[in-house]
Amino acid sequence: MRETMRGFKKLISLNEALEILLRETPIKEPEVEEVDLVEAVGRIVARDIYAQYDIPPFDRSAVDGFAVRSSETISASLTNPIELKLIGRVVAGDELSKLPKLGRGEAIKIFTGAPIPPGADAVVMSEHVVEEGEKILVTRPVAPLQNISRRGEDFRRGELIVSRGTRLRPWHIGALAAQNITRVPVYRRIRVGVLSTGDEVIEPGDPSYSPEYGKILDSTKPLLRALIREFGCEDVDFGVVRDDLRLIRDKILEAIDVVDILITTGGSSIGETDLVPEAISMIDGSKILFHGIRIRPGKPVGLALVKNKPVFIFSGFPVSALVEFQALVEPYINRIYNTKPVPKPYVRGVVTRRIANPPSTKSFVRVRVFQERNGKIYVEPLAITGSGVLSTLVKGNAILIINEDLEGYDEGDEVEVELLENISSVV
Amino acid sequence: MRETMRGFKKLISLNEALEILLRETPIKEPEVEEVDLVEAVGRIVARDIYAQYDIPPFDRSAVDGFAVRSSETISASLTNPIELKLIGRVVAGDELSKLPKLGRGEAIKIFTGAPIPPGADAVVMSEHVVEEGEKILVTRPVAPLQNISRRGEDFRRGELIVSRGTRLRPWHIGALAAQNITRVPVYRRIRVGVLSTGDEVIEPGDPSYSPEYGKILDSTKPLLRALIREFGCEDVDFGVVRDDLRLIRDKILEAIDVVDILITTGGSSIGETDLVPEAISMIDGSKILFHGIRIRPGKPVGLALVKNKPVFIFSGFPVSALVEFQALVEPYINRIYNTKPVPKPYVRGVVTRRIANPPSTKSFVRVRVFQERNGKIYVEPLAITGSGVLSTLVKGNAILIINEDLEGYDEGDEVEVELLENISSVV
Repeated sequence: MRETMRGFKKLISLNEALEILLRETPIKEPEVEEVDLVEAVGRIVARDIYAQYDIPPFDRSAVDGFAVRSSETISASLTNPIELKLIGRVVAGDELSKLPKLGRGEAIKIFTGAPIPPGADAVVMSEHVVEEGEKILVTRPVAPLQNISRRGEDFRRGELIVSRGTRLRPWHIGALAAQNITRVPVYRRIRVGVLSTGDEVIEPGDPSYSPEYGKILDSTKPLLRALIREFGCEDVDFGVVRDDLRLIRDKILEAIDVVDILITTGGSSIGETDLVPEAISMIDGSKILFHGIRIRPGKPVGLALVKNKPVFIFSGFPVSALVEFQALVEPYINRIYNTKPVPKPYVRGVVTRRIANPPSTKSFVRVRVFQERNGKIYVEPLAITGSGVLSTLVKGNAILIINEDLEGYDEGDEVEVELLENISSVV
Repeated sequence: MRETMRGFKKLISLNEALEILLRETPIKEPEVEEVDLVEAVGRIVARDIYAQYDIPPFDRSAVDGFAVRSSETISASLTNPIELKLIGRVVAGDELSKLPKLGRGEAIKIFTGAPIPPGADAVVMSEHVVEEGEKILVTRPVAPLQNISRRGEDFRRGELIVSRGTRLRPWHIGALAAQNITRVPVYRRIRVGVLSTGDEVIEPGDPSYSPEYGKILDSTKPLLRALIREFGCEDVDFGVVRDDLRLIRDKILEAIDVVDILITTGGSSIGETDLVPEAISMIDGSKILFHGIRIRPGKPVGLALVKNKPVFIFSGFPVSALVEFQALVEPYINRIYNTKPVPKPYVRGVVTRRIANPPSTKSFVRVRVFQERNGKIYVEPLAITGSGVLSTLVKGNAILIINEDLEGYDEGDEVEVELLENISSVV
């Protein structure tokens, strides 16, 4: 049996695996599609987009008040108010060519968002003015440009608004709207296929299922499909294939033509049933780039190139699959899109009991974070092993990553963990 | 003009506003709909869901190796291996009623995931066994239950898997799949309408747009619609209404019948053009619950009840709208769903220059977070005012919240900011 461990003799680190992945796998820019502005939220913009208009498009008032010449208000005070003649009124939406002109000793009533009339260089807020019919009394001086939003102060014409590779958030949508843009070029969603293997694996919903049959309901494929969707990609389900080399090979060949990335699950345990790498090696021009990484869980993960596309070979265990997806597939997809990873929420807390880390291994430990009445935050490890144990994710609420160079953490150590769920209440 | 500030005389705090919102606004459980398992990711589950099967459904091997009686291996060592007779083989997927029985002095070859045959109570890993035809030599002892995943150790039949109000993440989908569940009861998406007001406001895409006309392209409505979608709700677009009391009233009445929540933008500046609250007061049985909160930006926000549904009265400024949505609408929707807020990513950094905070005001300051070569993280404030200035969000990457009781932060102070975008690179 010792030979069956051969595949794991040269385990590489996660960083080495990422280097191989990004170096040996073709990274080609996805096709571009146009979508409606609001539909574009969450998508990756495919072109640099520049401002075609200054924003604001003209000098406008930031407050309700009176447009004035600031120099005429220098000495204004409550005891010595400056009197100005009220000659007009400008509201938001007034056409620029039809604005009244401000002369010496005059004021024009103006509302928030309204264009500044020619001749004026500041706006006195209503609170600092007493209105008396045809005239106003200004009780406070204003500086030049005070209470004016300058043309182009938000965006200047020609300025970059969003750069290629930006994951569009609501404020980007707002900024594009302000440029009269209603269709946005985005990358089409990366298509990620998932293919389960294993004689023992059956699809959820199979009416023949009974625990007595010794079969296992496939939880890993639905988990991966949900991960793929949550990550903004398109998932393609290639079902479950029996432990048969030719069937697996044929299904991989069928899938790889449809998807950008393929993930297989099962058949990766380097036992007698280690079929996926074997099935791949039967394909002309295919290549196994690595097999086995010093991560826990997730060690047996492999990467192959089939028809010049990456095939991630995952074990059948759901928690391993989660770790492998986040550690390898997400960075790969980010690289294809040339986008930054979405920031993850972290929290610091104190470890409640010792967590050992095997030598040179990067561990992803599921933990439960909780806050005591004193406000102190604690981190309780839920499972060191048990890569199939989904309950540790469902019952836990965070992941503690232990780097290769650490032997673990002792009770009382402060650590930073990635929050999967909020520890606070509804509001 | 001083009377026009009347509406703001009794500004309340954000917490007071939230209390009024959650106390005075009817919170009723949304209808339930069933969706396919993988479609349910990101949705809010509408029922407690319990395990109907033990997971694992039977004791199974966690490794490739040999099923044995642990008591027979107690003295096993490399120098004194224990010899056992190999009587069979069990693979994953084998039916429980057809497993070989293990007797004294016997071993059964077993693979990861395979059911433990009757008579065995532990599995010796392949690495600690020398296989010699019909017999094996065990070179290391195993403890009872070693390398066995116990029936029900992940989930016990009857155990709660996901509770009502859980925002389903991929691992929940995996756990439900393991229970043979393929349809999931979720709350229907909350429907949030957005209605812009203002004579000066025009829809992006209007071919008549020219900066010279003095009109403003509506960036706030697209921003809000994108926020609503990103938050997992359904947005309904009610367009732009002119500054006309009756038109606004009629449009609000039309909208409120369709949506669960309505957001209006514009007409809230408490100037002469403060039309939305007036339009609402023309509706029988309507009620303004508050108007004006001590937040910055976002101060002029109001809340009304129309036909017993909440109408959030936002100013027309996009950044204000963002703050108001996150501060008020999100907690309200979370309460309706009875779900926890999604955890937000924070990072700590050092303030690069003084930021003043007005008395008793909660400020949401847009900042740019950056990391120097020495690894130190800095927080640079981008704009204290300028609620319309979208570029501060697009160019910034984080929000600093300053609480009411603080006068601000000094240069060099360490603060925690909410990250809107990652500061690290692609991988």
